Amino acid sequence: MPKLTSAVFPGTFDPLTNGHLDIITRALNFYERVYVAVLSNSSKETLFTVQERLDQLREVLHDYPGAKVESFSGLLVDYAAKVKTRVIIRGLRAISDYDYETQVALMNRNLSSDVETFFLITREENSYISSTVVKQVAALGGNVAKFVPPIIEAALKSKFVSTKN
Amino acid sequence: MPKLTSAVFPGTFDPLTNGHLDIITRALNFYERVYVAVLSNSSKETLFTVQERLDQLREVLHDYPGAKVESFSGLLVDYAAKVKTRVIIRGLRAISDYDYETQVALMNRNLSSDVETFFLITREENSYISSTVVKQVAALGGNVAKFVPPIIEAALKSKFVSTKN
Amino acid sequence: MPKLTSAVFPGTFDPLTNGHLDIITRALNFYERVYVAVLSNSSKETLFTVQERLDQLREVLHDYPGAKVESFSGLLVDYAAKVKTRVIIRGLRAISDYDYETQVALMNRNLSSDVETFFLITREENSYISSTVVKQVAALGGNVAKFVPPIIEAALKSKFVSTKN
Amino acid sequence: MPKLTSAVFPGTFDPLTNGHLDIITRALNFYERVYVAVLSNSSKETLFTVQERLDQLREVLHDYPGAKVESFSGLLVDYAAKVKTRVIIRGLRAISDYDYETQVALMNRNLSSDVETFFLITREENSYISSTVVKQVAALGGNVAKFVPPIIEAALKSKFVSTKN
Amino acid sequence: MPKLTSAVFPGTFDPLTNGHLDIITRALNFYERVYVAVLSNSSKETLFTVQERLDQLREVLHDYPGAKVESFSGLLVDYAAKVKTRVIIRGLRAISDYDYETQVALMNRNLSSDVETFFLITREENSYISSTVVKQVAALGGNVAKFVPPIIEAALKSKFVSTKN
Amino acid sequence: MPKLTSAVFPGTFDPLTNGHLDIITRALNFYERVYVAVLSNSSKETLFTVQERLDQLREVLHDYPGAKVESFSGLLVDYAAKVKTRVIIRGLRAISDYDYETQVALMNRNLSSDVETFFLITREENSYISSTVVKQVAALGGNVAKFVPPIIEAALKSKFVSTKN
Repeated sequence: MPKLTSAVFPGTFDPLTNGHLDIITRALNFYERVYVAVLSNSSKETLFTVQERLDQLREVLHDYPGAKVESFSGLLVDYAAKVKTRVIIRGLRAISDYDYETQVALMNRNLSSDVETFFLITREENSYISSTVVKQVAALGGNVAKFVPPIIEAALKSKFVSTKN
Repeated sequence: MPKLTSAVFPGTFDPLTNGHLDIITRALNFYERVYVAVLSNSSKETLFTVQERLDQLREVLHDYPGAKVESFSGLLVDYAAKVKTRVIIRGLRAISDYDYETQVALMNRNLSSDVETFFLITREENSYISSTVVKQVAALGGNVAKFVPPIIEAALKSKFVSTKN
Repeated sequence: MPKLTSAVFPGTFDPLTNGHLDIITRALNFYERVYVAVLSNSSKETLFTVQERLDQLREVLHDYPGAKVESFSGLLVDYAAKVKTRVIIRGLRAISDYDYETQVALMNRNLSSDVETFFLITREENSYISSTVVKQVAALGGNVAKFVPPIIEAALKSKFVSTKN
Repeated sequence: MPKLTSAVFPGTFDPLTNGHLDIITRALNFYERVYVAVLSNSSKETLFTVQERLDQLREVLHDYPGAKVESFSGLLVDYAAKVKTRVIIRGLRAISDYDYETQVALMNRNLSSDVETFFLITREENSYISSTVVKQVAALGGNVAKFVPPIIEAALKSKFVSTKN
Repeated sequence: MPKLTSAVFPGTFDPLTNGHLDIITRALNFYERVYVAVLSNSSKETLFTVQERLDQLREVLHDYPGAKVESFSGLLVDYAAKVKTRVIIRGLRAISDYDYETQVALMNRNLSSDVETFFLITREENSYISSTVVKQVAALGGNVAKFVPPIIEAALKSKFVSTKN
Repeated sequence: MPKLTSAVFPGTFDPLTNGHLDIITRALNFYERVYVAVLSNSSKETLFTVQERLDQLREVLHDYPGAKVESFSGLLVDYAAKVKTRVIIRGLRAISDYDYETQVALMNRNLSSDVETFFLITREENSYISSTVVKQVAALGGNVAKFVPPIIEAALKSKFVSTKN
C-alpha cells in the first residue's frame, strides 16, 4: 500500500478560528495536501452560508498552496475516498471534544476500515477558542481580533452590523 | 420488603440501537420482567413517532417474552411505581453520559427514595453507537447494518427515502 | 490597586435554584456587595421573562441587602467594569460545567485582563440540581420543593398550570 | 436461568466509609444477601490488616443479617462463582472512578461473560468521602466523625495514636 | 462578619512552577496578603526538602511583599484559622485536578464551615506545566527555562547534577 | 521541508498488549517505518527488564519489517531527532489518558517545536485493556489470552510461576 501524502481536515468553520488555522498549518508540515472540507449539509443553523465560508477560507489560506478548500456533503469517509486520502485530521481542545470526537472516529473506522483519524492537541493559547464563543463575543460587540484571522474579524463585524440594521 | 423481580429501562429509542438491545438482553439475565419504557412527552423532536417506536421495539423484542414495551409520560419514578418496580436500569457509554445520568439518578432518588438506578457499562463494541450518530449516518445514506437491528435499519431507510421524495 | 469589595454572579436564572442561592449566600460571606446579574439577551429561549426573573430574585434575596439584582446585556466584562468590580463568581457543579466554564473564564480574561473569575464548588447536596432538570420535573407535575426556594416553586406551578390551560 | 438473589460488593475497605456503608445498605434493599468481600492480596499497602478490616466490617454490619463479610484472594469473578452470584455491585463517586471502574467491569465481563457489574451512584452527601482522604484527615488529627461509622473512627484514632507513640 | 483581606495558597511546590507563580500574582491583585503555605508533612517523597522549598519560594517572591511564605503541618483549615483567613486559593489546570480538588474543597468545608475554597483557572500558556512533568524533564537534562523561574531552574540543575555524581 | 515517512511510538510496554499492537499495525498503514521505542530509564518499577521487553517486542513484531524496536533514555524529542522523525504516535483509550497525554504532548511541542504528536483512538474492543490490569489478572492466575499476543501470555505465565516458586 503506497504511503499517502494528503489528509482531510473536515469542519463547519462557522467561522474559522485561530485554533482551526493552527491545526491546518501544523498538518501542512506533515502532508503535502490538506483538504479543508466544509460540511455543507449540516442540520445546524449557521451564521455564514457555505459559499461565504468557502470564500473566507480560501482568502485566509491563500498563502498556503497545500491547503485545498472544498465543500462536501454526504459521509466524510466517502469524501475521503473521492479525494483519495485515508487520513482524517481533527483537533482536540477539551474533554467534551474528546467524547464526541472519539465516537465519530470509531464510527468512521466502522464505516470504512481504511480511513484513520489522527488527532492533534490544540495549541495551549487557542484552547479556549471555539466558533460558538467567538460568535457570541462578536454578536455582543466584543473585540475578536485575538481569536480569528483579520478576514474573519471583518466578516463577523459586517454580519452583526447588517443584522442590527 | 420482598425482593423485586422487575426493572424499567427507560429511553427515547429514536431509534433503538444495538447498544440499547445489548443492555435490555443483559438486564433480562437478572430480571424476570424488563419494562422497556418509551418516553412519550419528550420536548426533543424525534424522527419516529411514539407509535412507530413502540411497534419497532415490539418487533425487535418479539423473542424476549420478559421484555414488555410500553410508553409513559410524566415522571419516571411515578411510572416505576405504577408498574410496581423500584429498579431503573441505564447504560453508561461515555463520560458525557456519566454527568447527565448521575444528575438524573440523584434527582430520581430525591423524588422517590425507594427507587434505585443501576448502571450497566455498554459493551465495548457498542461504545461509539448512539441514536444521534446512527440517524446522521442513515440520513447521509451510510450503511447502519452494524449498529442497529435489521428492523430498525429498514425503518431508517424507508424514513429517509420518503423524506427525500 | 485598592482591594475590591464587590463581585458579580452572572447567570440566566431560569429559574433560580437552591444551588444558585447557596453560591450567592456563600459569596456574601466574602464580598460586601454581590451583583446578581441576569443575562437579558441570551439566545436561549427561557421559561420566565427577564422581568419575571428579576422580580423572583429580588423577592428571594430580600433579606440579603448585600445582593443587588440587575439585568445586563452585552459583554460580561463590560458589565463588570460598569459596576466597578473585577471579580466574577461562578459555581462548578459537574465535569461538563468545568469544560464550558473554563473556556468562558479564559475568554473573559482575554477580553479584559483585569477581570478574574473565581469558582466555588457547589455544595454536595445541590450537586444534581440544575435549572433545566428542575423545569423538566415541574413540567411533569413533580414536587420541586427540595430544589428551589418557595417563591420559585410557586412561580413554576403557576407557569405550568397556565401552560396547560 | 434462575434469577439470583445475591450480590458481591468487593473492596479494600481501608477503612470502610459512610460512602461504602450507604452502598451496602442500598444494595440490601434489592438483594437478600450481599457479600462484602475484602480483597486480601492487594499490592497496595494498607493501614489496617485484612483481619482488622474484617472485624471492623462485621461489627459495623452486625445489624444487617443480609451482609456477609468475607475476604477473598484471586480473581473477583472466581470469588463470585464460588459464592454462586453473578452480580457485582460497585459505587461511582467521581469521574476518575468512572474511568477505572469501566475498565475493570469490561475486563471482568471478558473473564466471565456470566458476571455483570451494576453501578450505584454515591449519595450526594458522600460524594467527597474516600478512604484515602479520610486517612489523611485522621492522620492529621482531624475529626472524621461525619465520614465514617463510630467503630471506624475509634479504630483510626487508636491507629494514629499508637503510630505516634 | 468583617470582610477578610488575606488568603492561603497551599501546596507542595516541589518545585514552584510558572503555573503556581501566575496563580500567586493573580491572587495578589485581590488579596492584600497571600500566605504561600508549604505542606511540610506530606507522605509524598519530595525532591527538595521543606527548607529548600521555603528558601526558593522566598527568593522568587522577594518582590511581592504581599506574599508570605510559610510551612505548615496538620489540617489546612487549622492553618487557615491560625493565620486568620477564611479563603483558600487553588488553581485548576486539568480535568484530573478537578476531581481531586473538588473532593478536598468539600472535605475542607465539612471540617470547617467558615472556610471557602476559590478556584482560579490556570492561564492557558501554563496549562500543561506540572511540578511532576518539570522534574521528569529536568532529570533527563531537558531545558525547563520556559516552565519555572530562573531560581528554580538553577536549583533543578544543581540537584540533578549532584544526583548524577 | 521534506515529508517524513517515519514515526515513533514510545512506551513502557510492560508488557505489550493487543491495544499497543493494534496502534502499531495501524500506524504502519501510514508510515514506512515505526520506531517502537521502549523507555529504558523509567522511574516506575517494571515487571520485565528492558531487555526482556525488547526481546518480546521483536518477536511479536517479527513479521512487520516496518516496525523497528529500540530502547531509549533521555527526552523523547531528542530520541525523535536522533532517528530523524518529527512524528510521535500515541493511543488514546480513556479520559484519564487524555489528560496526561495532552500535557505530555504540549510539553514536547514546547521542548521541540518541530515535533508533533498524533493520537489514534484505541479500537473499541481494546478500550479496557491496559498493561496494569493485564498484569493484575495474570498475577491472580487469570487467562489473559484475549488481551495480549501469545508470546506475552507465555512470558507472563513464566514470570508469575517463577515468582511463586
